[in-house]
Amino acid sequence: MKLITFTTAGFSRIGAIVEGEKVVDLNYAYQAQLQSEGKYRYEAIAEAYVPAKMEGFLEGGNDSMEIAKSVINYALSNTSNFKHQLIYDKSEVKVNAPVTDPGKIFCVGHNYREHILEMGRDLPTNPVLFAKFANTVIGPEDDIPFHPISEQLDYEAEFTVIIGKQARNVSEEDALDYVAGYTIANDVTYRDIQRRTLQWLQGKTVDGSAPMGPWMVTTDELTNPSGLGVVLSVNGEVRQKTNTENLVFSVQHLVSFISKLVTLEPGDIILTGTPGGVGVAMDPPTFLKDGDVVKIEIDQVGVLENKVVLQAGRN
Amino acid sequence: MKLITFTTAGFSRIGAIVEGEKVVDLNYAYQAQLQSEGKYRYEAIAEAYVPAKMEGFLEGGNDSMEIAKSVINYALSNTSNFKHQLIYDKSEVKVNAPVTDPGKIFCVGHNYREHILEMGRDLPTNPVLFAKFANTVIGPEDDIPFHPISEQLDYEAEFTVIIGKQARNVSEEDALDYVAGYTIANDVTYRDIQRRTLQWLQGKTVDGSAPMGPWMVTTDELTNPSGLGVVLSVNGEVRQKTNTENLVFSVQHLVSFISKLVTLEPGDIILTGTPGGVGVAMDPPTFLKDGDVVKIEIDQVGVLENKVVLQAGRN
Repeated sequence: MKLITFTTAGFSRIGAIVEGEKVVDLNYAYQAQLQSEGKYRYEAIAEAYVPAKMEGFLEGGNDSMEIAKSVINYALSNTSNFKHQLIYDKSEVKVNAPVTDPGKIFCVGHNYREHILEMGRDLPTNPVLFAKFANTVIGPEDDIPFHPISEQLDYEAEFTVIIGKQARNVSEEDALDYVAGYTIANDVTYRDIQRRTLQWLQGKTVDGSAPMGPWMVTTDELTNPSGLGVVLSVNGEVRQKTNTENLVFSVQHLVSFISKLVTLEPGDIILTGTPGGVGVAMDPPTFLKDGDVVKIEIDQVGVLENKVVLQAGRN
Repeated sequence: MKLITFTTAGFSRIGAIVEGEKVVDLNYAYQAQLQSEGKYRYEAIAEAYVPAKMEGFLEGGNDSMEIAKSVINYALSNTSNFKHQLIYDKSEVKVNAPVTDPGKIFCVGHNYREHILEMGRDLPTNPVLFAKFANTVIGPEDDIPFHPISEQLDYEAEFTVIIGKQARNVSEEDALDYVAGYTIANDVTYRDIQRRTLQWLQGKTVDGSAPMGPWMVTTDELTNPSGLGVVLSVNGEVRQKTNTENLVFSVQHLVSFISKLVTLEPGDIILTGTPGGVGVAMDPPTFLKDGDVVKIEIDQVGVLENKVVLQAGRN
């Protein structure tokens, strides 16, 4: 499935993308199905198994995933008899990041083999982990806010993991059982602010600096996170190009590694690293500017495209 | 006021510490007062203004703070007529961290002037910021879990700020208006894990590595965050000793600085830095071990004391 968080009439809901351009409201679809089966408690049961918020839905695990799959079919074949709308055209709703308020966002530095080797460095023996907070999260239809606090706004294409199940001390072999799905993120970075101290956090966690989307592809559909092409372009010019088979630390390794330090929870996010080709490494360094369009394509996931919009101030 | 989050009979509630050893349940006290005034909607009104969760209470701002103050007096003079218990002995409840699930925990490195100068370094021109996630938060009555992933468990005494109001682009002059109060934190650090990559996160955000408490002292009671003595001892031996007047970047500066990058929200936390005297800097380096008791005292705030308990495994 391709799952989204979307907004309609001011309400935030979760949905599945079907037939390319339709959105099924999963909670209402399940309510409708339950009601059609004569269940008086249809609203409460739907809230328990398929709540309208992604973190809660993920907490439901396989039970909730299986229900979501079955109610898609119900909604497609029974559209007219429920009090709430079950299906929208994608253009009718606002699509947000799949998880709008993740508890933790782990990012991984220096994780593409070919880039490290071409820089003449040794491969790292441990993943370099750093953080973004949830204030960074924006969606696939949002603009990237360029706050006038720096002139060095940069992009980083990242294949991104969404945790589906509490993960504590899990092995690499079992790690994918704890993944709900995958999305794309742009680890937008204020490069000079990142580098003005040894710790990167302040240049990484600026408001709105983590566009994510266009959806979460679940692990039943995307079974192997290796071997996926990743391409980032700015205004159509390719700047980053790699394949997830070049990751030094695989998705499995990262989930296992982090889970030995930290209890991962449903909705937690791991940005797995970015390849060469960022703006600061160009000759001359070339940063993002107002109006630039940054597009990231990842095989089997989709396309995340956001426009950079200079903000007048920060008020 | 001294505000806490506490657990009783499996419920998490917020309270005020009064007369040293009593806990007033603020939500129930307000319910009781409203009911005594003949308000039928007493539960809903109390939930709106003084909810049982600290983040929600802080979102209520000055209105909620003023109500909290007034209901303490109500509870102390009217203890017997409400369906729920309004006052507990502190020993009857479990005291947790003031904010149990903060959205962001910012930590500041290298922020005590005397320590930086004695190391022969220049004072930094920008605060060094790094992160912990909310999985680290434990309370004043909890043991520090020593996960068997390292032999270099270390302590860091930190004067700690709790944000009370959404803060975005605020000036130093106005910064304290956005602070709800102060507490103590121990920035427990797995030193070798912190240092195995350039980014500190992985040694800083291990489960249970941020004891906080014993309560939040509100800003009406602690008006000036400078000039407070800070002492950390291990098993009674003083290891760290400083005064918050030695902070290179003051509370006001830090709140303002961070708010120019990130929108701070009620319940967000800032650990303002630690002075010299950490275990890794001793000769020879001396790390925490099973059974050690780490005690941090900060003037006008109180005492945070936790015992280190070696965990059998990490399952």
